[in-house]
Amino acid sequence: MPSTDLTFPDRDAHRAWLATQAVLPAGFRVGTTRFEFMPREAPKPARMTLTLVALDRPTPDFAAVFTRNAFPGAPVLVGRQRLLEPALGAIIINNKISNVCAPGGVETAERVAGETARLLGLPSHAVLPCSTGVIGWGLPADAMIQALPNAVAALAPGSAMPMAEGIVTTDLYPKVRRATVGKGSLVGVAKGAGMVEPNLATMLVYLLTDVAIPRDALRGMLQRAVEASFNTISVDSDTSTSDTVALLSTGAVPCENLAAFEAALLTVCQDLAEDVVRNGEGVRHVIRVALTGAPSIEVARGLGKAVVNAPLFKCAIAGNDPNVGRLIQAIGKYVGSQAPSVDLSRLRARIGGIDIFADGVFRLNPEKEAALVAHLRQAELYASAPAKDGVFAPPIDFPPHERCVQIELDLGAGSHQATVHGGDLTHEYVSENADYRS
Amino acid sequence: MPSTDLTFPDRDAHRAWLATQAVLPAGFRVGTTRFEFMPREAPKPARMTLTLVALDRPTPDFAAVFTRNAFPGAPVLVGRQRLLEPALGAIIINNKISNVCAPGGVETAERVAGETARLLGLPSHAVLPCSTGVIGWGLPADAMIQALPNAVAALAPGSAMPMAEGIVTTDLYPKVRRATVGKGSLVGVAKGAGMVEPNLATMLVYLLTDVAIPRDALRGMLQRAVEASFNTISVDSDTSTSDTVALLSTGAVPCENLAAFEAALLTVCQDLAEDVVRNGEGVRHVIRVALTGAPSIEVARGLGKAVVNAPLFKCAIAGNDPNVGRLIQAIGKYVGSQAPSVDLSRLRARIGGIDIFADGVFRLNPEKEAALVAHLRQAELYASAPAKDGVFAPPIDFPPHERCVQIELDLGAGSHQATVHGGDLTHEYVSENADYRS
Repeated sequence: MPSTDLTFPDRDAHRAWLATQAVLPAGFRVGTTRFEFMPREAPKPARMTLTLVALDRPTPDFAAVFTRNAFPGAPVLVGRQRLLEPALGAIIINNKISNVCAPGGVETAERVAGETARLLGLPSHAVLPCSTGVIGWGLPADAMIQALPNAVAALAPGSAMPMAEGIVTTDLYPKVRRATVGKGSLVGVAKGAGMVEPNLATMLVYLLTDVAIPRDALRGMLQRAVEASFNTISVDSDTSTSDTVALLSTGAVPCENLAAFEAALLTVCQDLAEDVVRNGEGVRHVIRVALTGAPSIEVARGLGKAVVNAPLFKCAIAGNDPNVGRLIQAIGKYVGSQAPSVDLSRLRARIGGIDIFADGVFRLNPEKEAALVAHLRQAELYASAPAKDGVFAPPIDFPPHERCVQIELDLGAGSHQATVHGGDLTHEYVSENADYRS
Repeated sequence: MPSTDLTFPDRDAHRAWLATQAVLPAGFRVGTTRFEFMPREAPKPARMTLTLVALDRPTPDFAAVFTRNAFPGAPVLVGRQRLLEPALGAIIINNKISNVCAPGGVETAERVAGETARLLGLPSHAVLPCSTGVIGWGLPADAMIQALPNAVAALAPGSAMPMAEGIVTTDLYPKVRRATVGKGSLVGVAKGAGMVEPNLATMLVYLLTDVAIPRDALRGMLQRAVEASFNTISVDSDTSTSDTVALLSTGAVPCENLAAFEAALLTVCQDLAEDVVRNGEGVRHVIRVALTGAPSIEVARGLGKAVVNAPLFKCAIAGNDPNVGRLIQAIGKYVGSQAPSVDLSRLRARIGGIDIFADGVFRLNPEKEAALVAHLRQAELYASAPAKDGVFAPPIDFPPHERCVQIELDLGAGSHQATVHGGDLTHEYVSENADYRS
C-alpha cells in the first residue's frame, strides 16, 4: 500500500518535492561525472555517467539482494562476494553498459572497483561495483578509470539528487523516497524499469541510512522488505540480469525501535517499487491487484503477478476498456496450470470498487460498464499519441498523479493476502523496444 | 518441424491451395448459416455464423482435448461429458460469443446441441457444442435455434472450406491442412489465434478422417500429437477458456499402419499449429526455437516457451533488431526461477545458423550483426505501417511465406529436445487489443 497519494501539476513541482526526499543522512557523500567513449561493439561514440557513493567511514552494516536470473551480470557475481567482506566503504555505479556475459567481465568490474578503492584509501574489496545498460558489451575500463578522479572530486554531502539523476538511463524522471526513524533517516534511490538503448531493463535500488542496525538484522529486514515490495511488481515480466538492491547504514544514530525501522524500510521500498512501475516502459496505467482470501502467500502473489502480466488484459487497460473476460482468463490460466487445487467457486472480483464477478458468473450491466470506463480513465497517466514519425513517446517527464486501476480479488479460500503492482501494455512500450534500431 | 515450405504471391493463390487441402473424407458433410441478433449485454446488433459438421453415421471413434484454464467455457464442460458417450454424430460450432461464465451457460449449450440432434435424428448427447468469442456474454439460444434448419439444409459433402471459413472470427485467413494415409485421408481445420471483437483469442481445431482407428487408440494419439504441436506454440501467453481440439473418424477405411496414421496426425497438427502462430494477432515474424541437449522434455519446452514469451525479445524481433542480450535474459530468467539445477555453462546459441554465444560469453562482431539483421528481415511477413487514424492493421489476408526466425539452443545437458513456435510483439498486436473500444 502506498504511503502517499501525490499529484504534480508539472515537472518543477515534482523536482521540488524530490529535493525534500533526497536528504542524505550524515556520513554519506555522492558525486557523479559524465564522459564520452568509443564502445568496441558499436560504430559510434556513447556517453556514460559514473555515480560514486562514499561513506565517511567503511561500515560492517550493509545488505544486498541480487537478480535471480541464471545469467547474472559480472557486478552481481562480484557483489555476492562482497557480502562476505568485513566492511563496505563505497559504491561505484555506471550506466550504458551492464557488463553481462562479456569476456573478462568480472576482472573488469574488479579493476574499476579496485581503482575506486585506491582513490578513496579503502581496501579494494570495500567497494561494490554496479552496472546497468546494454547486455553483452564490455565495459570501457580505461575510460572509466580516467574519469574516476572527477567523480571523487565531485563527492558532496547533503543531497542524493546527483545520484538519483546519475544512475538513470531512459527513465522519465528520478525516483527518491525518504522516511525518518527516531532521530535518524532512510533515503532510497531507484533506477528502472527504463530501457537501455536498446537493451534490457535493469532495476538498481540504493537505500542509505544513519540508523544503527547490525549487519545480520539489516540483511533479514532487507530480504523481507524486498519480498513485499520489489518482488511484487512487474512491468513486462522480463527479469533483468543486473537487478540489485543495496542497503547501507553508517550506524551513527542509535536505533531506538527495530520494528519502526523495519516498517520505514518497507514503506520506502514499497513506494520506490510503485515509482518504478509508474515510470515503467510505456506504462500509462498502474494496475494494483489486492488479493485476499488466498490459501498461501505464494498463490496470492502468483495470482497477482498472473493478472498484471497477462498481455491481453494489459492491452485492454491501455485502451480504457474494462474487458473483464480477460481478467478471468488470466486467473483461470494461473490456477489451471500453477495451483489446480484452488477452488475458484468463491472468487469475488471488484474493479474500482465495483462488483463484477461472484458465484462463478459475471455481474455486468451497462451502468457498471460506464463506471468501470470512468475508473480506468481517471487512472490514466497521459494520453497516447504518435509523433509525426509514427513513434509513440511519453509526453511527460514527471508523474502527474499516483492513482491506480484498483482490482480486488477475494478467493475465499484462506487468510493470506498480497498486493501486486504492474502496468498496461501500450504502443509506447512497443515503440521503445521495437522501433528503436541498435 | 514443418512439412512444407510454401510461398503465396497473393490471396487467390493461397485460396486455390487451401481448396486442395480441404477435401472432406467420405462420410462427413458441413454446412453453415449466418444471422444477425441482438446481444443482451450490448447496445447494437451482432452477427454470428453457425457451422455444422455431420457424420453420415454416428461414430464411437472420437477424441477431444480441452483448455486447462480453470474457468473453462460451458461448451468445454459439456464436451468433457461427451467423451463418456457411446457415439458422436455431429458438431455445432458458433463464433461471436464463447459462452464462458455466463449465467445458465451449460443449459444453453445443451439446448442448442439437443435441437441440433433433433433435426439430425440423433440422440441429444451425440452432438458436441463449441463456442468462440466474447467471454461473459450469454448465447442467443432462440436465434440460434431458429437459424439451425438453415445450417442443416446447407450440409454438403466434398469440401471443408465452408467450415474453415465459418468458424473464424478475426483470423486473417482460413487454415486447413490435409494428409493421405493409405487409401484414407485426414483433414484438419483450425481457428485462431485471432481476436474476438474485442475479447479473448480462442483456438478451435477439428480433425476429420475416414481411417478406422479404435476410440482408445485415437485418444492416445491425439493426446500425444497435441502435446507436440498445439502445446508447443504461444502467440501471447494467454490461455483461452475455450481451446478445443477434436478428432473424429468415420472408420470407413481400414487402417493398414497405425504408425503411419499417427505420423500423419502429428504432421497435420504441427502444420496447423504453425499456421495458427503465423496468423497470430499482430504476428509479423514467426519465431522457431529448436532446443536440444535438454535434461528433460519439460525443460526443453519450458525454455522454448520462455524465449517466445519474453516481451522484450519479441519486441526486438518485431524491429528486426538482433538483440541477443534479451535472448540470454529470457533463458536466464527461466533457468533461475524454474530449473535452477540446469548448468548453463555449456549453452551454445545460434540465430539463422550464426553462432552468437558459447562458453558463457557472446561471440559478436559487426559482420555477424549484419547477417543477423538480414535473417530477421527475410522472415518478416509484412512491413508495418499505421493507417491514417493511427491504428496498425495487417495489410495481408494470406500468408506470403513460411519462413521463420530460426533460433537453435543446445544446452549440452542431456538428450531431450523440443521445437517451439511463437510470434513477435508488434504495434499491430497492441492496436488489435487496445485501440479497439468495446
